[in-house]
Amino acid sequence: MSRLLVIGVGLIGGSFAGGARDAGLFAEVIGADADADNLARAQQLGLINQSLADWQAAIPNVDAVLVAVPPGVVVNVLSQVFQAGLPDHALVFDATSTKSSVVSGLQRELAGLPANFVPVHPMAGSELQGPAAARPDLYQNSQVFLTPTTDTAPDAVAKVRSWWEQLGASCHEIDAAQHDAMAALSSHLPHLLASAYMAFLGTAARREGVTDDTKPHTSSTALTPFAGPGLRDFSRIAAAEPTLWRDIFAANRHLLLDELDELLVHLGRIRAELAAEQDDALVRMLTDGRDLRRQLARHLPNWRADSD
Amino acid sequence: MSRLLVIGVGLIGGSFAGGARDAGLFAEVIGADADADNLARAQQLGLINQSLADWQAAIPNVDAVLVAVPPGVVVNVLSQVFQAGLPDHALVFDATSTKSSVVSGLQRELAGLPANFVPVHPMAGSELQGPAAARPDLYQNSQVFLTPTTDTAPDAVAKVRSWWEQLGASCHEIDAAQHDAMAALSSHLPHLLASAYMAFLGTAARREGVTDDTKPHTSSTALTPFAGPGLRDFSRIAAAEPTLWRDIFAANRHLLLDELDELLVHLGRIRAELAAEQDDALVRMLTDGRDLRRQLARHLPNWRADSD
Repeated sequence: MSRLLVIGVGLIGGSFAGGARDAGLFAEVIGADADADNLARAQQLGLINQSLADWQAAIPNVDAVLVAVPPGVVVNVLSQVFQAGLPDHALVFDATSTKSSVVSGLQRELAGLPANFVPVHPMAGSELQGPAAARPDLYQNSQVFLTPTTDTAPDAVAKVRSWWEQLGASCHEIDAAQHDAMAALSSHLPHLLASAYMAFLGTAARREGVTDDTKPHTSSTALTPFAGPGLRDFSRIAAAEPTLWRDIFAANRHLLLDELDELLVHLGRIRAELAAEQDDALVRMLTDGRDLRRQLARHLPNWRADSD
Repeated sequence: MSRLLVIGVGLIGGSFAGGARDAGLFAEVIGADADADNLARAQQLGLINQSLADWQAAIPNVDAVLVAVPPGVVVNVLSQVFQAGLPDHALVFDATSTKSSVVSGLQRELAGLPANFVPVHPMAGSELQGPAAARPDLYQNSQVFLTPTTDTAPDAVAKVRSWWEQLGASCHEIDAAQHDAMAALSSHLPHLLASAYMAFLGTAARREGVTDDTKPHTSSTALTPFAGPGLRDFSRIAAAEPTLWRDIFAANRHLLLDELDELLVHLGRIRAELAAEQDDALVRMLTDGRDLRRQLARHLPNWRADSD
């Protein structure tokens, strides 16, 4: 009888638990969560077979452990898992969106990386969270990164990879540092920009103090008529949980800073072109941006309807 | 018998034409377009009753003219309309996304602003364009700004406003300069950011040169697995037509520069907080951004499902 323990049954962990149940990957899927309401909800939604308030006692009897907790505590929880009597054959994997910090943190805690630990990052978040947002089919057509080190057992990687593939994911094995650089560039940076812009917009709209012809407005309602579909889409990622993203930014701080610095140079150049009426340069920038958007839309079916 | 002439039957003009036909606002809706294919398409789609290659000859017999041409040529076309024998009772309105440049440009061309010209900006664009993207119901639940000056006849404003309202829009009368400041802030600035970011992403992804375990990648396919739903939404506006946005940026250059400068200061501060590990300040920024997003979602039904 094979047992999966999922620690953290929010959007990411809960969806894996529900998907693993539906696919019959394990005889039993046990859930644990620091938040008792989340845990009760996951059980009620049928994402898990059994819930545990204290998961430490279950460790000696599990075959696999998914640690899907916030990035700020993941190294600590992983290290507890490895120190609670885990069977030799059991596989442990995480779902954190930065990988170097997890790998190096765990290496430090355990004085070496266990061969049965597989670092994983499923690209399937959203601005929603918690078990209520979890869906057993969340990983269908998703992209999942595995960042094994030379310490990681190849058959552990193959096994964990096959589980994600059975849930519908396309899996990519990649170096942790490369993964984190690409994540900084393609995920953390736009998130920072969208959030920074929205924070700025709130302040600036209050400063403008727009009123219309019929009645005085508060800042947010004055902004409302200007809030078109472009702004809605652009700002969607800013709806996500602030502390989660604080942790992600912190875990990938240096790569994010590198990319942000380069982007600020690029924005400074665009600012100079705008001021100098170098509108041809602006067209090149707008065209480069549109072309990449189109290229991605050609590769990604769920981008296509939007822009082609 | 009342006649509407729509000059420019793309997404914006074609949708108004089709909506006006469906609502029976005019006995006849005539379309004109510098692009013969667009014009034929608009007629074929039933957006207009009649198409004209040369609209100048029709001017003496129209009751209303919508000029929905690109911002780079709108002042020129409007000034031709007023110099082609327009009847005194006829009303003329535009659909340009910046207003001060249109008002002051026309004032200069005609040595004074005609009382029967109503400056309009319907907030209903998308990254799509052309008559094929036009929909008679595009303005249902949209926001439309009217920016009359002291020269504008109040009954002209009331009449044009009533047409947009009959197409389902909520109308707002606002000062042109205030409109442009808010548009710079809430529309032009996020567009600039999304486009600049996408242009940067293309360059940076080539620099990273990511490859996976199975095959070498070109830059765009290397990026593909990292292109999640957050990036998709954030970058959607960057899919729009480059020359249209060059014109919009040019027409609102100074206000856009003011807002961009303030945003760059704000981003510089966030960069310093990230570098100095002032993560509490980052949480405040993330929270401010999320809160404004939530406020807007509370006011705007079509934002709600995304983030609450």
